[in-house]
Amino acid sequence: MSIVIAALLLAGQPPRPDTLTVLIAYHSRGGHTAQLARAVEDGAKKAGAEVKTKNVSDVTCAELRDADALVVGSPVYWSNMAGEVKAFFDRWTNECQVLPPAFPMRDKVGAAFVTGGEVSSGKEIALMTMLAAMLGNRMIVVSEGQALGATATTGDGKQPLAEGELREGRALGERVAHVAKALKRGR
Amino acid sequence: MSIVIAALLLAGQPPRPDTLTVLIAYHSRGGHTAQLARAVEDGAKKAGAEVKTKNVSDVTCAELRDADALVVGSPVYWSNMAGEVKAFFDRWTNECQVLPPAFPMRDKVGAAFVTGGEVSSGKEIALMTMLAAMLGNRMIVVSEGQALGATATTGDGKQPLAEGELREGRALGERVAHVAKALKRGR
Amino acid sequence: MSIVIAALLLAGQPPRPDTLTVLIAYHSRGGHTAQLARAVEDGAKKAGAEVKTKNVSDVTCAELRDADALVVGSPVYWSNMAGEVKAFFDRWTNECQVLPPAFPMRDKVGAAFVTGGEVSSGKEIALMTMLAAMLGNRMIVVSEGQALGATATTGDGKQPLAEGELREGRALGERVAHVAKALKRGR
Amino acid sequence: MSIVIAALLLAGQPPRPDTLTVLIAYHSRGGHTAQLARAVEDGAKKAGAEVKTKNVSDVTCAELRDADALVVGSPVYWSNMAGEVKAFFDRWTNECQVLPPAFPMRDKVGAAFVTGGEVSSGKEIALMTMLAAMLGNRMIVVSEGQALGATATTGDGKQPLAEGELREGRALGERVAHVAKALKRGR
Repeated sequence: MSIVIAALLLAGQPPRPDTLTVLIAYHSRGGHTAQLARAVEDGAKKAGAEVKTKNVSDVTCAELRDADALVVGSPVYWSNMAGEVKAFFDRWTNECQVLPPAFPMRDKVGAAFVTGGEVSSGKEIALMTMLAAMLGNRMIVVSEGQALGATATTGDGKQPLAEGELREGRALGERVAHVAKALKRGR
Repeated sequence: MSIVIAALLLAGQPPRPDTLTVLIAYHSRGGHTAQLARAVEDGAKKAGAEVKTKNVSDVTCAELRDADALVVGSPVYWSNMAGEVKAFFDRWTNECQVLPPAFPMRDKVGAAFVTGGEVSSGKEIALMTMLAAMLGNRMIVVSEGQALGATATTGDGKQPLAEGELREGRALGERVAHVAKALKRGR
Repeated sequence: MSIVIAALLLAGQPPRPDTLTVLIAYHSRGGHTAQLARAVEDGAKKAGAEVKTKNVSDVTCAELRDADALVVGSPVYWSNMAGEVKAFFDRWTNECQVLPPAFPMRDKVGAAFVTGGEVSSGKEIALMTMLAAMLGNRMIVVSEGQALGATATTGDGKQPLAEGELREGRALGERVAHVAKALKRGR
Repeated sequence: MSIVIAALLLAGQPPRPDTLTVLIAYHSRGGHTAQLARAVEDGAKKAGAEVKTKNVSDVTCAELRDADALVVGSPVYWSNMAGEVKAFFDRWTNECQVLPPAFPMRDKVGAAFVTGGEVSSGKEIALMTMLAAMLGNRMIVVSEGQALGATATTGDGKQPLAEGELREGRALGERVAHVAKALKRGR
């Protein structure tokens, strides 16, 4: 992204005050994280938000700018988000920002969800790293579902997610939309 | 706290809509965390908040209920908050709550600050544990200063905090007040 | 503990070379963490260790000194170890050490296990805080079971632990003993 | 890597008993992490190890297999290791392993070091994610320098590392070699 476009980005139109835009950015290999992303989408829509659900690698700087809230989803590899999702966070600085210490995502609402193969093999540490990246970017962070966000255990990967896991996803989407709406109205 | 009082707590008067109350709860042994707490207080007051700054062990359930935002400060012992501060978080469930999974602190703004003896000896992990406790309680979490909150390095403990560290504290207090104000107005 | 005793502690007899002592220190309210502690004990005994299993508040400085390995267990409260377990770690410095930066537990093997009410409500973050305390004390840290240690989900608290959870505990105890034995022989 | 080579890898010759091999794998953009890597190397050599220091993207599965210990270094981006370093960890499973739940790096000694632009902006969380990946792989983890590993603050990036930071790196390298040597002798 050229400096000119990035400058326009920061000088860009503020999001419309009458709508709430929630961006859901995920990476999915086997389909489980995509399924949980759709549950998050359902929850956010139920709370009245306009929702865009996209693969992390397809998200543009303009979409980041226009979102009132961002929910990021990842499979868990070695107690951390997938490399693809880490690269997504790194792009915020490398591509979507004019000059540090500007924080283009400042004051947007952030949350995270993950899927992983075993009951407790790194899902929370992965969620925590995603929330830490958001906090470092000065986002406003919430959780729902489990302590740090929505989670699903995929086991051998052959079953769809359980209803309770989808419910966590919907609750996360709904909460993100509610908090973002209150913040937007109150500013 | 008796069940009756706890029930009243949850049924209690909502905080007055025209004021913003920030509660700063800290533990301090040598005085450095108290000094950083006062910087956080200065920042929150500058942003128009009414501020209560108290030792964690003196905070009541009513004060928790009445606060729009809570900023918790701790010295770092072994990459974690002090035992006194952990006990403060544990009291929320044991004393200030009627029935799980009610979250009495739900939707209040939360943030954290720490002081520690060495440059990088556990301060961030400690901040993260405090924010994780807040997220588990479904608070709305922000940072300022460093990635996860305000920090100060106390070295041999004989010097007052540096101006840059106090500035981090003030920035944290100011940001917490701004976000809490927007949320309160917008609900 | 007086300075004199503490000095003796550091100057004390080295552990006997022909035996391996594993200390399991846990806190348990409802009995689940105690049950997982016994599984860890079974695993360590199977690997030939002499095992002491004690409540954290009953562990003495001498027992810490004499142990070749320490496995700490805690219920999870708000994504962290219980206050009682945090106090146990804090006592190492306050009671069992002569002068910083001496690390009395340096080079001993450490590991952790936790029990918690929900599938992913803070267990890993709690394990991580326990391992971080050990690493800060310059212990040599291992895991087994889940990514960061053995875990059990207690649900409503009325059921005993599942066989798979006990198996995690035994695997953790066995691994700790094997690594500690190799280290002891090799020094 | 083909299945055949991977199978050979696991069936491969054990490392020679009379030497100790420490592999230092790092990513560096501006040169600071490379400088800290050389300090780690100096420390490990001082303790008698043969040391290979390589960029993460140049490390082969055979080099991972042959190492008795692995020290990983990364700059900190958003409270996490760099994407390049995360990709390095992910390759262990994708390229260097036959069948899960085999852990090819099991029982090797692991440690980490990081460099970052600000005093406390994510360095520890980044170290913790690297150690968590190692623990999930069933490595034996140690630290030295700061609580979770060696760290350096690069500020505006124009100064070389401070002597105290290099000393942390050397201490980490030395400790890793000592622990790995004892383990190797004792097995």
